[in-house]
Amino acid sequence: MKKEIIKPSILPGFMELLPNEQEKFNDIVNKILNVYEKNGCLDIDTPIIEKANVLLAKTGGETEKQVYSFTKGKNDLTLRFDLTVPFARYVAQHYNELTFPFRRYQLGKVYRGERNQKGRYREFYQCDIDVIGKDKLAIENDAWVISLASKAFKEIKLKDYKFQISNRKILKGILKGLKIENSNEVMMLIDKYDKIGKGKFIEELTFLIGNEKTLYLSDILDIKGSNKEVVESLERLNIKEDYFIEGVNELKKVNEILKVLGVEENEFEINLKIIRGLDYYTGTVFETLLIGNETYGSICSGGRYDNLAENYTDKILPGVGISIGMTRLFFVLKEIGFIENYNVKGKLNYLIIPIGDTLEYCGTVMKSLEKKGYGVTIYFEEDSLKKKMNYANKLGIENVILIGEEEKIKNEVKVKNMTLGKEFVTDYNNL
Amino acid sequence: MKKEIIKPSILPGFMELLPNEQEKFNDIVNKILNVYEKNGCLDIDTPIIEKANVLLAKTGGETEKQVYSFTKGKNDLTLRFDLTVPFARYVAQHYNELTFPFRRYQLGKVYRGERNQKGRYREFYQCDIDVIGKDKLAIENDAWVISLASKAFKEIKLKDYKFQISNRKILKGILKGLKIENSNEVMMLIDKYDKIGKGKFIEELTFLIGNEKTLYLSDILDIKGSNKEVVESLERLNIKEDYFIEGVNELKKVNEILKVLGVEENEFEINLKIIRGLDYYTGTVFETLLIGNETYGSICSGGRYDNLAENYTDKILPGVGISIGMTRLFFVLKEIGFIENYNVKGKLNYLIIPIGDTLEYCGTVMKSLEKKGYGVTIYFEEDSLKKKMNYANKLGIENVILIGEEEKIKNEVKVKNMTLGKEFVTDYNNL
Repeated sequence: MKKEIIKPSILPGFMELLPNEQEKFNDIVNKILNVYEKNGCLDIDTPIIEKANVLLAKTGGETEKQVYSFTKGKNDLTLRFDLTVPFARYVAQHYNELTFPFRRYQLGKVYRGERNQKGRYREFYQCDIDVIGKDKLAIENDAWVISLASKAFKEIKLKDYKFQISNRKILKGILKGLKIENSNEVMMLIDKYDKIGKGKFIEELTFLIGNEKTLYLSDILDIKGSNKEVVESLERLNIKEDYFIEGVNELKKVNEILKVLGVEENEFEINLKIIRGLDYYTGTVFETLLIGNETYGSICSGGRYDNLAENYTDKILPGVGISIGMTRLFFVLKEIGFIENYNVKGKLNYLIIPIGDTLEYCGTVMKSLEKKGYGVTIYFEEDSLKKKMNYANKLGIENVILIGEEEKIKNEVKVKNMTLGKEFVTDYNNL
Repeated sequence: MKKEIIKPSILPGFMELLPNEQEKFNDIVNKILNVYEKNGCLDIDTPIIEKANVLLAKTGGETEKQVYSFTKGKNDLTLRFDLTVPFARYVAQHYNELTFPFRRYQLGKVYRGERNQKGRYREFYQCDIDVIGKDKLAIENDAWVISLASKAFKEIKLKDYKFQISNRKILKGILKGLKIENSNEVMMLIDKYDKIGKGKFIEELTFLIGNEKTLYLSDILDIKGSNKEVVESLERLNIKEDYFIEGVNELKKVNEILKVLGVEENEFEINLKIIRGLDYYTGTVFETLLIGNETYGSICSGGRYDNLAENYTDKILPGVGISIGMTRLFFVLKEIGFIENYNVKGKLNYLIIPIGDTLEYCGTVMKSLEKKGYGVTIYFEEDSLKKKMNYANKLGIENVILIGEEEKIKNEVKVKNMTLGKEFVTDYNNL
């Protein structure tokens, strides 16, 4: 009886890579995490499934609709849809056992049942840093988390990214000064500015706040110049609202500290149109654009919030965080041709190919190379030499060691460099 | 209005670690994966959610009851319950784009709704290696995957593990020779041997196959001696069944190759009672016991199978694999005191503490240390020096750099080694 064959496939909206691309993905992730660790971030790992009532404490509307929820036995369960909510739960739960300021990073898969379209994923890796203080947290941290993103991008040799930085307090102060009642609607409109374009923006803003205030506000949003000049222009507005003054001072400070921490002037710019949605952020906000490829949107975003875990604890836990959507970043980097040219130095340095009955000697050579720290393995199948060499070629292995009876007797090895196509014979101890 | 606080907690059967233990967990995992990569295994990553009909193609009974299944929209979804079924699907789906023999490793979380008890997890990391051939796969690979487990354990400095190796064909041949009809029941009984003890085993076996065959079979299962002696004893049985002869030859070969690949004689032993359940494995089978802590069961298991992906393809794909349940291994290593004494060299080498208005100079020192490859960060909060030093202490940071006005003016740094408690002042370029 013939077995029924089920067509192997995965769900739409899920990314699965072939080994060659997986190696590149891993290398990029590992380099970024290495930067985070060398800068003192501690890793945490939280469950992918959590209690629905805990994970959905704060959400509603759009998020809740996208969430993967189900029951198992008597439990209502939810798959995490970001790393921030589980982190808030983690900090509240383990509060007494953590050292503050708590600088943590986390890499993990999150789940959102988004509409299926190119470049949008339902399962994707997010990679977050957050620094959480007890009651207070210095503004320097806002610059510090951005500086880590900068170091991470430099580490993977990504160019042409530009951090777009603002501070929510600035607009809040301006809108307050203008006595605008429907400030949330205005903020939401500014959030859409780059999507809808200036013409449409002015039109809709005029509808919301009238002609005069629209002109005043859009002039501010359009302030051009170096970062220093933008700050000076803002100061010259001479707005007396506390929020505004605080926001400009924080933005100025973040600008200064960024440079102290090694972020170059050309890596970032002030962009007052950056909002990052309505909830959550309260001070510094930022996004990251790829210059020349702005249409892909932000590849790394974040900001400052007043209180991380108010749903889970009475403690006041201000924080600042950044997030990279790794799966989406990888998609974008493929689209712009970065991945194609991204080279990973594999850890397998030598493939040993036995010819004839030489396996024991091959083992000796392998152990010798391993002792020296090399990555090495043996090809075990009985195939033609052509097929064996083809295997090394396909896997991109740099050096092949051929060991036949002659090499075994003479205690030698024949090494073939696959890139240069050159062969030489040597004592294996010389490798 | 006071906000309602939800008690932060996770589901039972889910492991969540504090940063200190997380660091140890990560270090163990990274060391193991590094061994796998240096030995030429390629990483793959598959979705955690798959189509239910694809993932559950083969299962039934116990497994299916434990599986996390749910619907989202019109789709029946299942969380993966192991890494083998998704791997089978992956190989069948991407068959034409893979290079065989395909040596892959995979680390990932899997889900099983097991009965809640200590040391049993519903979400746990599994870490697998499998080597898959097209139509054929050399027996050397069976020894090779075990040798990688050996290298991995040596890398994390785990001692007292012992591989328990058998070959299913041997018992199959013996039972066939004995003309035993209910061989599956006998195999299942042998699988339980160590759990139920010899007395009970003999009793139940006698009930199944009678007194005479029981004596004959239990004598074979009890064969003692060095691995070489056990093989010789088996050969002396002079059983003419093809399965038996093939099984003994394969076992003999695996023994030999293990030594060629650097696995010491004292790391493994032949144990004919190893079965690994009824389905799936067809040749080599093995488990790994911690000597002195056998009650925790196997920490690494695997074996040879004839055909990986028969549910998804007509292609014949024999393979051999090993699996480490990382979450459970970590639990066991904690229980036996291994984790307590496991030290991780953190990547953060220096914590810079500014005293007074010295942040800019601190940035210069940081950048200089980073250029030399050190891990370094700055403490930003305005706290008492005592609190700052306490932070370094709690995080186990080796070296603290204190930078006050004096150090800034003199272009120096004050370094305090937290382990030795010693201080010295130096030019920061000398660090």
